[in-house]
Amino acid sequence: MLHGGDLLTYGRKYKGELLDFSTNINPLGVPKGLYEKLFDEFSKLEIYPDIKYRKLKEAVSKYLGCDFENVLVGNGAVEIIDNFMIDAGRVIIVTPSFAEYELRAKVHKKEVISLPYKADFTVDTERIRQTIRREDLLVLGNPNNPTGLRIEKDTLLEIYKICEEKAAYLLLDEAFYEFGPMDYDSIELFKADEYKNVGIIRAATKFFALPGIRLGYGCASIDKVENISKVELPWSINALADKAGQLIFKDKEYIEKSRSYIDRERTLLLKELGKIQGLHAYPTHTNYILIRLDSWDKEYVFNFFLERGILVRKCSRFENLPSNHIRVAIRSRSMNERLLKVFKLLERGEKDEE
Amino acid sequence: MLHGGDLLTYGRKYKGELLDFSTNINPLGVPKGLYEKLFDEFSKLEIYPDIKYRKLKEAVSKYLGCDFENVLVGNGAVEIIDNFMIDAGRVIIVTPSFAEYELRAKVHKKEVISLPYKADFTVDTERIRQTIRREDLLVLGNPNNPTGLRIEKDTLLEIYKICEEKAAYLLLDEAFYEFGPMDYDSIELFKADEYKNVGIIRAATKFFALPGIRLGYGCASIDKVENISKVELPWSINALADKAGQLIFKDKEYIEKSRSYIDRERTLLLKELGKIQGLHAYPTHTNYILIRLDSWDKEYVFNFFLERGILVRKCSRFENLPSNHIRVAIRSRSMNERLLKVFKLLERGEKDEE
Repeated sequence: MLHGGDLLTYGRKYKGELLDFSTNINPLGVPKGLYEKLFDEFSKLEIYPDIKYRKLKEAVSKYLGCDFENVLVGNGAVEIIDNFMIDAGRVIIVTPSFAEYELRAKVHKKEVISLPYKADFTVDTERIRQTIRREDLLVLGNPNNPTGLRIEKDTLLEIYKICEEKAAYLLLDEAFYEFGPMDYDSIELFKADEYKNVGIIRAATKFFALPGIRLGYGCASIDKVENISKVELPWSINALADKAGQLIFKDKEYIEKSRSYIDRERTLLLKELGKIQGLHAYPTHTNYILIRLDSWDKEYVFNFFLERGILVRKCSRFENLPSNHIRVAIRSRSMNERLLKVFKLLERGEKDEE
Repeated sequence: MLHGGDLLTYGRKYKGELLDFSTNINPLGVPKGLYEKLFDEFSKLEIYPDIKYRKLKEAVSKYLGCDFENVLVGNGAVEIIDNFMIDAGRVIIVTPSFAEYELRAKVHKKEVISLPYKADFTVDTERIRQTIRREDLLVLGNPNNPTGLRIEKDTLLEIYKICEEKAAYLLLDEAFYEFGPMDYDSIELFKADEYKNVGIIRAATKFFALPGIRLGYGCASIDKVENISKVELPWSINALADKAGQLIFKDKEYIEKSRSYIDRERTLLLKELGKIQGLHAYPTHTNYILIRLDSWDKEYVFNFFLERGILVRKCSRFENLPSNHIRVAIRSRSMNERLLKVFKLLERGEKDEE
């Protein structure tokens, strides 16, 4: 399983309703009333979306607090990341990270340099300094998937400085931004057009629970936005995603509610997982938790959960991540309780066998 | 205007409702009841589309009459065309043609060879034979945009043979297929896996009047489909497009009705345009008509129509097309009558000024 959420494949192996902990979507679902607003106002599949996505970009610029001219939009964050790679020199990734960074780079025949995270999943800035050179594109998840950690502000400023000095480019994939502490906002930190060597990408996919819509957006300097516009596919965002993007960012209540919900459930899950013997749950700034399995084989654990109606993410394909890791999403209270129950069962089962 | 349909820009220049003859969408609109079916059954933006698009591909395979394994789907025809270009050697285009062929080839740093159509807009097979070589990708619109002509069956077989002999690849963009005579079906003609050097692409955009949905699909040999799958963006078709594709092809009545509607209107428009002095309307197998202006400047004509609430397509950016051409879509009877009225006004206006 390269990506999570393949319920069509795994659904066949369990008779009941399979609970999906393999993808990381906001458990509160889409903003309230979105479907109604979207479909009531909606009868525009018969005309092309605005090829310049002007209204959408205005909504994004307001939400991100950057100028209209600095806004990028795409068919999911991954399309924007892909566009950045087309004109890059080498692509530097720090692993384990989202598999598409390497895949997209290779599609565009780029040399990929993969540096490991430190043991505590913080960025090794010295390795970056030694490695990076002119025209390189450094892609960093912030927070990173699957490790879950956000880069500390000072470290991030240091990484930017390295990129600037070496005339390289820093691309931050912040698809999980709103789930985290938001103690700093990289878009505010790297005011576009002052900081020219950085692009920041976010998405509606995870936080706004809209993976079906395919809407990514971001912020970069004007000249970078112009360069990207030369390689973008035309009309890559469909009319429904265009419209959804004009609606979701206004719902401040939903945003706050989602943030505090995740915060509460994250605290609970980490606390309870901490009590389970035979595994280590890593700290996280996101809505998912990376878990190292110390006492069980991963396939055994995957199937143990699957047989009990829960799909977890095997982290099999992540570079620089030992094979004894799984990832679980933070979901609704009742689902999280079911997840914990199965973890306790797993723990007890082992003890029985000893 | 690189692409048609930019109503947001041109709408400002006319106070009333601007009639858009610059894009080529089925005037009957989307299949009957599509919105209801789409939105009633639809509440799946919160989960990822099936990354393998199994149900969608099944629907496409049934519609096209090819095997499931030969089906390609993408975010509009243009994304599939783009995917074919990534691993191509040189890209051979025959012009004038859809501007994206050249643009996408250049995004992927391909050498582009542009051969002209013959004066009657048929393909110059000898030029192709002399030019094409191993690993070239020959892209042909069938029917071609903006010229409107479909390739004759024998000519197409000859072109395929040239490609096969030279170990080149033929990519047919058949986005307008259903509007035409359908006297042969290239998917039937080039049975996938027997004819390995050809890919055929169609789209929901034009015939099913769904430019807002972004759904392209096509057919190629299994090994080609596998190669393309390695460069495709994940989840490039959103959930609404995925669902729409599972609904539209079943509506045989809509398909037949649309074909005969267009046929009738095309006959009428060509007949009436034939009576207008000072222009030449080319024959067409599509839902648009290319017009050569012999007596007026193009900008004058464009503005003449715009002032009367009609947006026509200036064909300014087409290679190998003299600048005195415009393109108009075939729309509803009442709209077509308004279009003809303004053409007659244009004709009389000139006479008045003489």
